[in-house]
Amino acid sequence: MKVFTASDLAALSKVERLNLVNSCTGYKSANLIGTLSPEGHENVAVFSSITHLGSDPAMLGFIVRPTSVPRHTYQNIKATGLFTVNHITVAQMEAAHQTSAAYDYGVSEFDMTGLTPTYREGIAVPFVSGSPVQLLCRYLNEYPIHENNTIHVIAAIEAIYVEDTLVTPDGWLQLDRGDVVAINGLDGYARPTLQDRFAYARPKTPLKSLRPHAS
Amino acid sequence: MKVFTASDLAALSKVERLNLVNSCTGYKSANLIGTLSPEGHENVAVFSSITHLGSDPAMLGFIVRPTSVPRHTYQNIKATGLFTVNHITVAQMEAAHQTSAAYDYGVSEFDMTGLTPTYREGIAVPFVSGSPVQLLCRYLNEYPIHENNTIHVIAAIEAIYVEDTLVTPDGWLQLDRGDVVAINGLDGYARPTLQDRFAYARPKTPLKSLRPHAS
Repeated sequence: MKVFTASDLAALSKVERLNLVNSCTGYKSANLIGTLSPEGHENVAVFSSITHLGSDPAMLGFIVRPTSVPRHTYQNIKATGLFTVNHITVAQMEAAHQTSAAYDYGVSEFDMTGLTPTYREGIAVPFVSGSPVQLLCRYLNEYPIHENNTIHVIAAIEAIYVEDTLVTPDGWLQLDRGDVVAINGLDGYARPTLQDRFAYARPKTPLKSLRPHAS
Repeated sequence: MKVFTASDLAALSKVERLNLVNSCTGYKSANLIGTLSPEGHENVAVFSSITHLGSDPAMLGFIVRPTSVPRHTYQNIKATGLFTVNHITVAQMEAAHQTSAAYDYGVSEFDMTGLTPTYREGIAVPFVSGSPVQLLCRYLNEYPIHENNTIHVIAAIEAIYVEDTLVTPDGWLQLDRGDVVAINGLDGYARPTLQDRFAYARPKTPLKSLRPHAS
């Protein structure tokens, strides 16, 4: 195996270090966060750090770097309290990646990338049309991570909109039925295919497959 | 689309809510955390919340629920300061899921599941043999998340061990070359295949594919 020690990492070029460290924790979720500025400007941006935090109450978290590109998203969330999370499909991955370009404040990434906003009655923030899983979220809190000056944003999941075909009888969402992608590093987009699903594991009991749900 | 509002979520059975909310944030990383107790007992446990936090310095975070099964992992990390992160392959996914069973303290999940520990000179904690990406990590800090009594553990990545075939010329790791899986919800294991990789996105510039790296 190839080994990179801490001093090897320090000696890499910035791009190599970004590529290596961003891909070394495994696949990441691929989502578009939709927001609205207080002046009514739409914003949509790709995020790979959105992570489940708990089911009851339903909560998620994600990481922002206040000095990097997605700060418009963070500013809008702080100002309005609301945002949407939209799974990225194979068909959307190019447009989704293009949202990471450093557009000026007030420019809508929807206009620039060809992604289509969708609005729902009574909800100010835009969802992304064609995304098979769409969440409405409300800002709850944030925890500054002092070790590298990032911010862990915590949000409540207030509503889940999902294509009917993804929902299995026990409430699980089979994401490959919606062509949802995963992110590999900073810029790689991969399409997962379900291999198996397992029942709750118990000591000294053979693991049971829930294979009827497999593709 | 099917809609679940906050009151719909509250009305679901516990299992349905767990399945739905755990799968609604997208694919998750699939890793085994290897630790050693102060008495020298090996432990290995599946985690789906490990997330990249920053590249310089190289850091990651993950979520623990102090009252749930993986608390042996957390106790060992607090006691020794060290742990390993090991990507799960298609061949390992069944054994990896079995590590989530509630084994008694002191029982090695390596012995119970057929996963094989590997040790490296000068490093006390076990890696998982056959994992194509293996990280040595050191505990840095933790942030209690008051909204649901979970803990966000922050760690430094001290070394990265990776199969040579995964490393591309610019330092990126092409994870599908190692058959690395992603987790869908609590218990679904999916095998991603790279679709495309894109260059740094810029406003008003067509997105460039880095397709030579594609499978």
